[in-house]
Amino acid sequence: MHEGGKLAVAATIPLTSPEDLSRAYTPGVAEVSRAIADDPSLARRYTWVANTVAVVTDGTAVLGLGDIGPRGAMPVMEGKAVLFKQFAGVDAVPICLDTTDPDEIVETVARLAPSFGGINLEDISAPRCFDIERRLDARLDIPVFHDDQHGTAVVVLAALRNAVRLLDRDLAGLRVVVSGAGAAGVAVTRMLAAAGVADLVVCDSRGVLSGDRSGLSPVKATLAAETNPRGVTGSMADALRGADVLIGVSGGRIDEAAVAGMAPDPIVFALANPTPEVHPDVAHRYAAVVATGRSDFPNQINNVLAFPGIFRGALDANARTITAAMKLAAADAIAAVAADDLRPDRIVPSALDPRVAPAVASAVAAASD
Amino acid sequence: MHEGGKLAVAATIPLTSPEDLSRAYTPGVAEVSRAIADDPSLARRYTWVANTVAVVTDGTAVLGLGDIGPRGAMPVMEGKAVLFKQFAGVDAVPICLDTTDPDEIVETVARLAPSFGGINLEDISAPRCFDIERRLDARLDIPVFHDDQHGTAVVVLAALRNAVRLLDRDLAGLRVVVSGAGAAGVAVTRMLAAAGVADLVVCDSRGVLSGDRSGLSPVKATLAAETNPRGVTGSMADALRGADVLIGVSGGRIDEAAVAGMAPDPIVFALANPTPEVHPDVAHRYAAVVATGRSDFPNQINNVLAFPGIFRGALDANARTITAAMKLAAADAIAAVAADDLRPDRIVPSALDPRVAPAVASAVAAASD
Repeated sequence: MHEGGKLAVAATIPLTSPEDLSRAYTPGVAEVSRAIADDPSLARRYTWVANTVAVVTDGTAVLGLGDIGPRGAMPVMEGKAVLFKQFAGVDAVPICLDTTDPDEIVETVARLAPSFGGINLEDISAPRCFDIERRLDARLDIPVFHDDQHGTAVVVLAALRNAVRLLDRDLAGLRVVVSGAGAAGVAVTRMLAAAGVADLVVCDSRGVLSGDRSGLSPVKATLAAETNPRGVTGSMADALRGADVLIGVSGGRIDEAAVAGMAPDPIVFALANPTPEVHPDVAHRYAAVVATGRSDFPNQINNVLAFPGIFRGALDANARTITAAMKLAAADAIAAVAADDLRPDRIVPSALDPRVAPAVASAVAAASD
Repeated sequence: MHEGGKLAVAATIPLTSPEDLSRAYTPGVAEVSRAIADDPSLARRYTWVANTVAVVTDGTAVLGLGDIGPRGAMPVMEGKAVLFKQFAGVDAVPICLDTTDPDEIVETVARLAPSFGGINLEDISAPRCFDIERRLDARLDIPVFHDDQHGTAVVVLAALRNAVRLLDRDLAGLRVVVSGAGAAGVAVTRMLAAAGVADLVVCDSRGVLSGDRSGLSPVKATLAAETNPRGVTGSMADALRGADVLIGVSGGRIDEAAVAGMAPDPIVFALANPTPEVHPDVAHRYAAVVATGRSDFPNQINNVLAFPGIFRGALDANARTITAAMKLAAADAIAAVAADDLRPDRIVPSALDPRVAPAVASAVAAASD
C-alpha cells in the first residue's frame, strides 16, 4: 500500500496542443503573473495557493516513534495529505525539514509561505512546538495550526461536550485532570479553560503541576499558574481523587487504584496510542463514558475529525489566523454531528463520517473574523 | 484557464474504510516510518519522494518580466509543474520563496531537501543563480538543476548539432558567437565548449568579453578567460565578422549589418522572447538555418524538450547530480528524435512531441554514473 508513496501531483488543465501551451504557459502566463505582481491578492484567484496547505514537520515527535527524522516522517505526512484531500478537498504538500532548530524552522517556513494558503505543523516535539507556532502565527498572514495541539484539543472538547450532555452534567462544574503537559496536554487544558471548565489540574510524569513545584519549564510554570485553583499537590492519584474527568494525553500508565478514587461515574479519555493510559476494560469498571485514541475501541478521539474541516473553513474564509473562537466552533460542530444519537459508546462521529468536515468547515468560516 | 490554479494533489490510494485508515495511516504507517528511520534509502521505495521535484524560484527573473516576486511567479511554476507531469510523469511542487538572499535560498532549499527527489531552480536572476546552484549541488545528494541555464543549453546544443548535420559542417570547426552572459549565455557557452566547440566568443551589452575588459564580474571574467582564443575585442559586430554561428540569449537587439558580416550561410539562433535579437525575416536574408524561442516561428528552442526527460532520467537512475555527460546525452537524444527528417525549418522536435522525454530520460539515465 505504501510502495511509491501515497500522493501525486495532478494537472487541472490540459496542455496537449500548441494553443494550450501558449495560453497556460509561455507566453500567455505572463499576463497572469504580471497581474498578480501588481495586485498580490489575485494569487488567491489565479493560483492553487488558496487551496494549498503545507504539512510541515521536523520529524521529532512522529506518532509514538519519537524523533525519527524527516525521512521517516514522510509516510505519515503523506497520509495526512491524503486525509486533507479526501475529507476537505484541500491540496496538502508534505514538507519534511532537515533541521530541528526552532529559529531555522521558523525562518524556513516563513520563506516558503508565499507558496501556500496555510501551514499545518505536525509531529514537532514539545516544548519547541509552542514557540515555533506562536512565532509563525504572529509573522504570517496565513493560518498556522499545530495539529498535535489544537486538533486533539478540538476533538477532546467535542467528545467531552457530548459526554456531559449524555450524563446530564455541566461542563463548567467538572473537576478535570489532564495527564500530560506536552503539545496535546497544554492545548487540551487551554481549550477546556476557554470552553468554561474552571477546575483543571494538569499532571506530568512527576505529578501535579502546582506553584510549589520547582524546576518547571516556562510552559509548565505558566500552565501551573493558569490551572489548579484548589492548589492540589502530589501524584496523579492525588489529582484524580474525586475528579469527574480524566484526559490522558501522556503515554504513561495510570493505576487502576487511582481511577477507582475518582468521583462516581467519571469520564475517562485514555488517548495514548497504541497503549492507553488506562485500558478501556479497566476504565469501564468505574467510568460512565470511556474514549481512546484507537480505532478498535468505541469513541475514537481522532484528529481527522478536526483538521480537514478547520483548514477548509479557514481557507474558504481567507482567514489570517485560526482563533480560539474558530476552534470552539469546530468542536461544537463535531459534537453536533453525533448529538442526534448519543450513546455511551458513541459520543463522537466515526472518523470516516463524511458529514463532519463540511459541518466543521462552515462553522469555522462563520466564526472567523 | 488560470482560475483556481493549474495543479492539485491527488491520493494514489483509497482511504475510505477503517481498514484503509489503519493501514495507510495510523497505526499501520508507523511500521513504514520506522523502517525508513532505520534505513533512509527506503524512503525512495515507500514515499513519493523518489518521483517528486521541487520547482524553486525567488521570482527575480520571471520570463521577460524580471523581478516580480514569489507570488507573481507562481503561475509560471505551476505551468512548469504541469509540463513535468505531462511529459515525464514527474510530480513537481512549486516553491516560491520570500527571500532573494543567496545564503537564505541555499539554506532554505537544503532544509527542504528530504522532501524531494530533485531540485529544479527556476527564474533566479544572474549572477546569483550560479552560486546558488553550485552550493546546493555540492551540498545535496539529490540532483540540482537550474533550468534557465542548462535546459536552454541542452536544447541549443541539440539544435546546433542538427543544423551542423544538415549543412554538413563540423561542430569543432565552427566560430560561434554567444550574445548574452547571463544564466543562459554562460551555460550555453560551457555546454558548447564541452561538446567540442573551440572558437567561442561571448558578448554582453557592452561588447566582447576579453581579457582586456576591465570591471568584469567574477563570472564574466572567468568566461572571458575560458573563451575567445583569437583575442577578439570590440563590439558585437566585430565579434560576428566571419562567424559561423550566432546564439542570442540576451534580450538585446543585433543590427542587420552585423549579421550581414557573418561567414556565408551562417546559423542564427535568436532566442530572446518575445522579441528575438534578430527578426527571423531579417536573419533569413543571410542565414542557412534560423531558430527562435517563439512557438509561432519554425525551430522553437523550448526548454520543455529537456527538463522533463532530464529529471525523469536522473530520478530513475537515482543520480546524485546531473553531470555534463548527462546533459550532453540529453542534447544528443533530442537531436536524434528530429534527425530522421531534417530540414532547415525542422532541426528540433516539436515542443509537444511525446517521443522526446522518454528518449531523453533513457539517455540521461544511461549516462549517469
